[in-house]
Amino acid sequence: MSFKEGLHNRAKEVDDYLENYLNENRNQFEEKLHNSMRYSLLSGGKRIRPILVLEIGKIFGSSVEELVDFACAIEMIHTYSLIHDDLPAMDDDELRRGKKTNHIVYGEALAILAGDGLLNYAFELMSQVSVKRGMNHVKAMHAVSLAAGHQGMIGGQVADMISENQGGNAETLRYIQENKTSALLTCALLAGGYISNVDEHTITDLKQLGLCVGLAFQIKDDILDIESDEATLGKPIGSDEKNHKLTYPSLFGLAASKEKVKELTDEAHKILDGFKGDVSFLKELVDYLCHRIS
Amino acid sequence: MSFKEGLHNRAKEVDDYLENYLNENRNQFEEKLHNSMRYSLLSGGKRIRPILVLEIGKIFGSSVEELVDFACAIEMIHTYSLIHDDLPAMDDDELRRGKKTNHIVYGEALAILAGDGLLNYAFELMSQVSVKRGMNHVKAMHAVSLAAGHQGMIGGQVADMISENQGGNAETLRYIQENKTSALLTCALLAGGYISNVDEHTITDLKQLGLCVGLAFQIKDDILDIESDEATLGKPIGSDEKNHKLTYPSLFGLAASKEKVKELTDEAHKILDGFKGDVSFLKELVDYLCHRIS
Repeated sequence: MSFKEGLHNRAKEVDDYLENYLNENRNQFEEKLHNSMRYSLLSGGKRIRPILVLEIGKIFGSSVEELVDFACAIEMIHTYSLIHDDLPAMDDDELRRGKKTNHIVYGEALAILAGDGLLNYAFELMSQVSVKRGMNHVKAMHAVSLAAGHQGMIGGQVADMISENQGGNAETLRYIQENKTSALLTCALLAGGYISNVDEHTITDLKQLGLCVGLAFQIKDDILDIESDEATLGKPIGSDEKNHKLTYPSLFGLAASKEKVKELTDEAHKILDGFKGDVSFLKELVDYLCHRIS
Repeated sequence: MSFKEGLHNRAKEVDDYLENYLNENRNQFEEKLHNSMRYSLLSGGKRIRPILVLEIGKIFGSSVEELVDFACAIEMIHTYSLIHDDLPAMDDDELRRGKKTNHIVYGEALAILAGDGLLNYAFELMSQVSVKRGMNHVKAMHAVSLAAGHQGMIGGQVADMISENQGGNAETLRYIQENKTSALLTCALLAGGYISNVDEHTITDLKQLGLCVGLAFQIKDDILDIESDEATLGKPIGSDEKNHKLTYPSLFGLAASKEKVKELTDEAHKILDGFKGDVSFLKELVDYLCHRIS
């Protein structure tokens, strides 16, 4: 099986798990809310974060049953952040992955509540499986809460928003990249690690791995926004420059950006090589994320 | 000490605890986000939910140290729901408790993120203390997540929103009251109970107590909106009728509403009398919530 097939099958597996949530409604109100939550949750996406939870967990000896609620919970957090990002008061986007954004379909009020609902539901799922399975899961949940919160993804989002108006320096850029993009990717790895009760040394490695992948992923995104074309990318290019966005290429230039992606990818491979178990899929996944053309 | 003094002192105690959170910023972005979160969190409020966590926990043998993070977390969830409720896309309110609402002061984008941040921070605090203290706290956290979520407070909020446009019947009203108002009050009681490792019978009592207090509190609110005056209430009266809001008085009339509050208060007292320990403050609190004039 090729890497692409393997990736596609894993994403499909995650989609099937996600389909099982939010199916039961007690009344018309919950039905409406659930439809709005499901609309965004099931509207495609690469499912990178849940795949990372499942792959890392598997390498360190956990079963899918132990991992799946966390995999889906982190995807829910990712999805809620996209719904709120797209709101008129934020990025005001009408399309995402070629589909109408949540507030265009369901209205702003329900989009806000669907986002809130997905964030809350993530913690509902994580605490539920923690009651059943114990303290490793509680540690994983705490790691997720830190990554998603005011000193993680939300902090990064605020920094990104402010820097669009005020500009920023390398330190600002680093903060945005570490928190807005890397934090949630990293916590997917950490969740797989904590659930599998890995040692502190491995937790440190997983943090560094998440940082490398997150930074490389983001810089690659910024390079594509300059070098790709609309047909390949599926969205207009050049938007970062237009919006005065603080990016690695805008601060350091294209050549240095490509060099940085290579460095980070190499480091990620090296960390993965240090793990016992079959890391071949994960290594290909890192390459795919950092060398993709769209 | 009078009941009013006791209540005031307890609210002040909660304010002091809340003051301790979100004090440390690593940079200007977090400072801005934290300011927005703190603005709403520290802008007054009766602190009923955290006081319930602390009082019920105390009665069943828990220390303040075991309870305080949950008390504050539930107040954060309450606060985030108010920030999002006040947004232009929702109730579009410019004032709350006589102060400008969050989005008026910080702008809509930051208000959305501050709400997200408070919800997430609540689970950060609860999972953190759960890692330290164990499974009773995890059970409490799961109860909070259920109460705050898509089949709890958020579900009730959606139902309330839809019924304002479409009207509704007694069943709709019951769903709104049970979820929009009662769920979070009930989970404050449950958190105190679970943390104190009470038996299943007591959990059932706490659920019924929360329901009685929540329903009575809400019906009293609706009665005041008809019978009070703007000077006493601190806000315009008659807004429910103007907004075609589905309320107990609108469905069953004023006399039946007052009778219902009395019934619910009596039942709450009876449940409290069944608990070992000093429930005198809690009984006075129930009376205060159900017989207040503003």
